[in-house]
Amino acid sequence: MAQTTPNHTLTVSGWAALDSSGKIVPYTFKRRENGVNDVTIKILYCGICHTDLHHARNEWGITMYPLVPGHEIIGVITKVGGDVKGFKEGDRVGVGCLAATCLDCEHCKSDEENYCEQLQFVYNGVFWDGSITYGGYSKMLVADYRYVVHIPENLPMDAAAPLLCAGITVFSPLKDHGLVTSPGKKIGVVGLGGLGHVAVKFAKAFGHHVTVISTSPSKEAEAKHRLGAHDFILSSNANQMQVAKRSLDFILDTVSGEHSLLPILELLKVKGTLFIVGAPDKPFELPAFPLIFGKRSVKGGIIGGIKETQEMLDFCGKYNITCDIELITPDKINEAMERLVKNDVRYRFVIDIAGNSDLIS
Amino acid sequence: MAQTTPNHTLTVSGWAALDSSGKIVPYTFKRRENGVNDVTIKILYCGICHTDLHHARNEWGITMYPLVPGHEIIGVITKVGGDVKGFKEGDRVGVGCLAATCLDCEHCKSDEENYCEQLQFVYNGVFWDGSITYGGYSKMLVADYRYVVHIPENLPMDAAAPLLCAGITVFSPLKDHGLVTSPGKKIGVVGLGGLGHVAVKFAKAFGHHVTVISTSPSKEAEAKHRLGAHDFILSSNANQMQVAKRSLDFILDTVSGEHSLLPILELLKVKGTLFIVGAPDKPFELPAFPLIFGKRSVKGGIIGGIKETQEMLDFCGKYNITCDIELITPDKINEAMERLVKNDVRYRFVIDIAGNSDLIS
Repeated sequence: MAQTTPNHTLTVSGWAALDSSGKIVPYTFKRRENGVNDVTIKILYCGICHTDLHHARNEWGITMYPLVPGHEIIGVITKVGGDVKGFKEGDRVGVGCLAATCLDCEHCKSDEENYCEQLQFVYNGVFWDGSITYGGYSKMLVADYRYVVHIPENLPMDAAAPLLCAGITVFSPLKDHGLVTSPGKKIGVVGLGGLGHVAVKFAKAFGHHVTVISTSPSKEAEAKHRLGAHDFILSSNANQMQVAKRSLDFILDTVSGEHSLLPILELLKVKGTLFIVGAPDKPFELPAFPLIFGKRSVKGGIIGGIKETQEMLDFCGKYNITCDIELITPDKINEAMERLVKNDVRYRFVIDIAGNSDLIS
Repeated sequence: MAQTTPNHTLTVSGWAALDSSGKIVPYTFKRRENGVNDVTIKILYCGICHTDLHHARNEWGITMYPLVPGHEIIGVITKVGGDVKGFKEGDRVGVGCLAATCLDCEHCKSDEENYCEQLQFVYNGVFWDGSITYGGYSKMLVADYRYVVHIPENLPMDAAAPLLCAGITVFSPLKDHGLVTSPGKKIGVVGLGGLGHVAVKFAKAFGHHVTVISTSPSKEAEAKHRLGAHDFILSSNANQMQVAKRSLDFILDTVSGEHSLLPILELLKVKGTLFIVGAPDKPFELPAFPLIFGKRSVKGGIIGGIKETQEMLDFCGKYNITCDIELITPDKINEAMERLVKNDVRYRFVIDIAGNSDLIS
């Protein structure tokens, strides 16, 4: 069991949605004192994930208000509990989606805490002490060290922040399908947003032929010239889709809006896999025929385990992979979310929580 | 390339659907003469697959009338072409869904002809000579020997017929997931019909714990007492479904009617697989969350390759596995199809094409 600390005495400034309007406003709340397994983190940057928006507006019907979103958290350790191993004051660290898991089940024991049945998220979760968790849209976080990772020294902390969710979300399925160590495959990435653009970077770094599939003609130049994708398919172009049938080994679908899986499945070779990481509100339409006639798979997954997240970050450090971000001040969060709805961001908003940067847009 | 024989001179008596009413009537047609790669088969028995019904009624919109259905064909060889290997007159043989494939692509070369892009089915296909293929609801078949399999001597030919489609359809996914050689898994079978009942037999023979999931309370006794399933879940019983969450390693969904995948997916353990072999007319509703939160897969597949079909039959011979059938005379085909719509059959209708049996119901 993770540390339980009933004493929530630390006052923290943050930003929260108070109702389903989803409007984010300044909000002051309490966090637990630093326990023996905890580290206290001065938050410097926090990415804005589409999940934050889903939660702020209660689009999945599970939001507990007030909601302090944020699970792409980067900062510096200011306090370390007595039983903490591997971390010290001053360390550059990150916290992603996980706040607590049972640490005892088969998943926790096999470094897949992200599938623990007792998993609690870093916001809108219920911690062991019964308190609701508050995320990274705030100045400070107290986190169990078992869900904290190191940020390689060479990576800029702002552009590394989205790796904690967007990065691991696309890294894990690629690793899971042996694509980190077997170059030369044909990989498709559906959607060129926060997740998609990192997926392109990883797939290229792993040595694959990368095709971006998008509904936006304007993304072609982006995909090819800015991110170096090898190919681009405009999904509304029936001819392009037809030509590309049965051509891809693996497709990562990062789109969280509603869309049809049929044409995407047809792009896969026999025995190909479509891996879904976006979570539309409504169910997908899944036609049986492209699965049956192509022995294809549709899979899903959520982030990755902590060990794997550290591995992903170390890989990013080695190959200098970060996210392309737009850094904003906290007073621009609502504006950013409006733009996020329209996919008007290249490619991830990151909040300059501590006001350290001069690069504010 | 398979043999091309433009000369269709052999007159054959059979049974066909002439329009989308799906009514099956006596029908006389021509088959090609026996080519160098062909064997001529006197058909003794032919199973009635749900696919026959879909085609007879043009429910998939692809039927070419007149349609002679039937792809669970068993008979005796009466003629052998000069280049045929491994077959002789008098052999007990079976023909399943395949009439022709390119024999040259990666799939054909790796014994997965069933995924060849140029695959032509044994009925409602277009053979190399441009003729439409006619299936097993007929007295005689000319078949390329590369799509013909041997029927083990100890198996009754009537009860073995459905193995050619129903049998291989459920055997192949089990084999593909390593379940033939790794006993002790928890296997679910959705639907206890023509496919489902064979799946239960295979899964038991492979040493697994087998749970049948059905909408029909009456199937519980059937599943447990007649077929020896270890467990039964009534899918309309929310409590039973809740208790069984995250309990199964692999589920084979054999239901061809519309149904929701959500509750079935929830029964899978983390990283479990739902394998679909039924093909409803309309797309499934596939919710993202049970995939994402459980790292689950939905897969599909169609029958198996010829080598694998022979392997399946040999396994059936060794363990004496056949289908539970109701044998009918050809004049009862329409009645049987009406009953099939209502799932009123234990578990597969087989047509006594040659009128050899005294066991007619």
